[in-house]
Amino acid sequence: MKIAVIGAGLIGQAWALVFARAGCEVRLWDGDAAALARSRVLVGELAAELAGSGLVRNAGELVARVATCARLEDALGGVDYVQENLPEVLALKREIFARMDAIAPAAAVLASSTSSIPASAFTEELAGRARCLVAHPVNPPYLIPVVEVCGAPWTGSDTIDRCQALMLAIGQKPVHVRKELEGFILNRLQGALLREAFRLVEQGYVDADGLDTTVRDGLGLRWSFIGPFETIDLNAPGGLADYCGRYGGLYQSIAKEQTSTEPWSPELVARLHAERRALLPAEALGERRTWRDRRLMALALHKQAAGKETT
Amino acid sequence: MKIAVIGAGLIGQAWALVFARAGCEVRLWDGDAAALARSRVLVGELAAELAGSGLVRNAGELVARVATCARLEDALGGVDYVQENLPEVLALKREIFARMDAIAPAAAVLASSTSSIPASAFTEELAGRARCLVAHPVNPPYLIPVVEVCGAPWTGSDTIDRCQALMLAIGQKPVHVRKELEGFILNRLQGALLREAFRLVEQGYVDADGLDTTVRDGLGLRWSFIGPFETIDLNAPGGLADYCGRYGGLYQSIAKEQTSTEPWSPELVARLHAERRALLPAEALGERRTWRDRRLMALALHKQAAGKETT
Repeated sequence: MKIAVIGAGLIGQAWALVFARAGCEVRLWDGDAAALARSRVLVGELAAELAGSGLVRNAGELVARVATCARLEDALGGVDYVQENLPEVLALKREIFARMDAIAPAAAVLASSTSSIPASAFTEELAGRARCLVAHPVNPPYLIPVVEVCGAPWTGSDTIDRCQALMLAIGQKPVHVRKELEGFILNRLQGALLREAFRLVEQGYVDADGLDTTVRDGLGLRWSFIGPFETIDLNAPGGLADYCGRYGGLYQSIAKEQTSTEPWSPELVARLHAERRALLPAEALGERRTWRDRRLMALALHKQAAGKETT
Repeated sequence: MKIAVIGAGLIGQAWALVFARAGCEVRLWDGDAAALARSRVLVGELAAELAGSGLVRNAGELVARVATCARLEDALGGVDYVQENLPEVLALKREIFARMDAIAPAAAVLASSTSSIPASAFTEELAGRARCLVAHPVNPPYLIPVVEVCGAPWTGSDTIDRCQALMLAIGQKPVHVRKELEGFILNRLQGALLREAFRLVEQGYVDADGLDTTVRDGLGLRWSFIGPFETIDLNAPGGLADYCGRYGGLYQSIAKEQTSTEPWSPELVARLHAERRALLPAEALGERRTWRDRRLMALALHKQAAGKETT
């Protein structure tokens, strides 16, 4: 497969790595020549780091599959699939999709990494709008495999199918979002939980560290290998319906206290930020992000091994 | 430390294992003599299984630290801490706490495993009410370490401190819930996320399997070793406050669509149940629960190892 990655920032680099790791031939394009030159070096560094942990077999071969192209025409020529990663600005998306649709082979799928703009907002006028969709990754996609696949109303079902098949083939986990909606699935679930988390701290029931402990040493453990529906399906003798019969009343009663749509107040945000800084000084944020990514790598390897052993 | 475990069902057995694994001397009591006799055998089987995975060192020594007592007086004599696990019936909690308060040494802490009844509902009239509280585990506590510690308004701060210190000493992760509230912290967070999950399926955006994939291959990964607050703190250059500045508007906009407090409809529950049964037949539920517990064991070992390597 030949893949064009459009936009060579952090997300573009990560996609280049994901596609090249799976054996695809990748062409990376960016309007900024210096950023483009730098990006290939950064993909190499990333690949070497992943090779050290065992998540990439041969970093040199991987990087050899990534070419940079100064001209968009060169990047798009003969490709099967395009993954776009420009900044989250509607005008930029409109412009680049118009160019991509004019240049790329008619059979190529055109996907955007956007997390906040629906495909319908930048593809309606295009001749090839049926081949356009959103394939929203989670950062960084080489460690977090889920990809939210969401078309506009005019996206062809074959486009959805081909995008999902490609994602599966390269080791990602596509989730089909059947209609456009703000935040897709992942951020809506995150938002629902965060909203209650902020409220519980604001009302004095728990501090930020206690809340994080509740998730990392409790709620988050099962969710890291079975989702919320399978979790409740296994948590009552008769499965999901039995669980809903037993605990639906409790959750409905709780729900009545979870309806505030007030924005998080500046005081609350400042208080939580101060608590975080007491736990982790600002100057240690970068180091902690590196630690987080090492933990994500270790977790990815663990899940690979555990999946083989126990399914 | 001498510990009494009152009620020898699944949760009582699990607590006996957790305390004995940490070297405590455990006395297990149950009003049902047959259940009591069976429970010690089951603790032994559980310990042997955990020993096989490396989460218990010496199953024989562990079980030797668990004694069963036919009389409540024998179980409570000379203990430092009592963990109660009777059925979730207020009258039963009231009766057993009155008996425990009358019999147990004055210095012993009296904790209930209840997930749904606040300590204030069954301790108000007791002479020793200051030493009573809830220590709510997640099932099974030998694999999921979080324990929600929540007192009544009259619970002594030393009682809270001693309970938390004991939980830390035996390898659990206590979270102090500072005021009584329905569902404590964990189930309120779970409820908030489930509510949006049910809604997203009901409105046709995603199916149950896609939603589970979004969590198990996306949202749940970071949450299994850092909580939701640390996750957002690391997800913007300037930390949590920066994150709220960037994405608070998105979450507030989404929140306005997440306010329904309608119960999950029978049709929706039936549809989700049917989808789960298509993925996992009813007769395979038991086997899958065993698989889940093996995965939790493997995850616990992974987290122990990763914690040593990377912190």
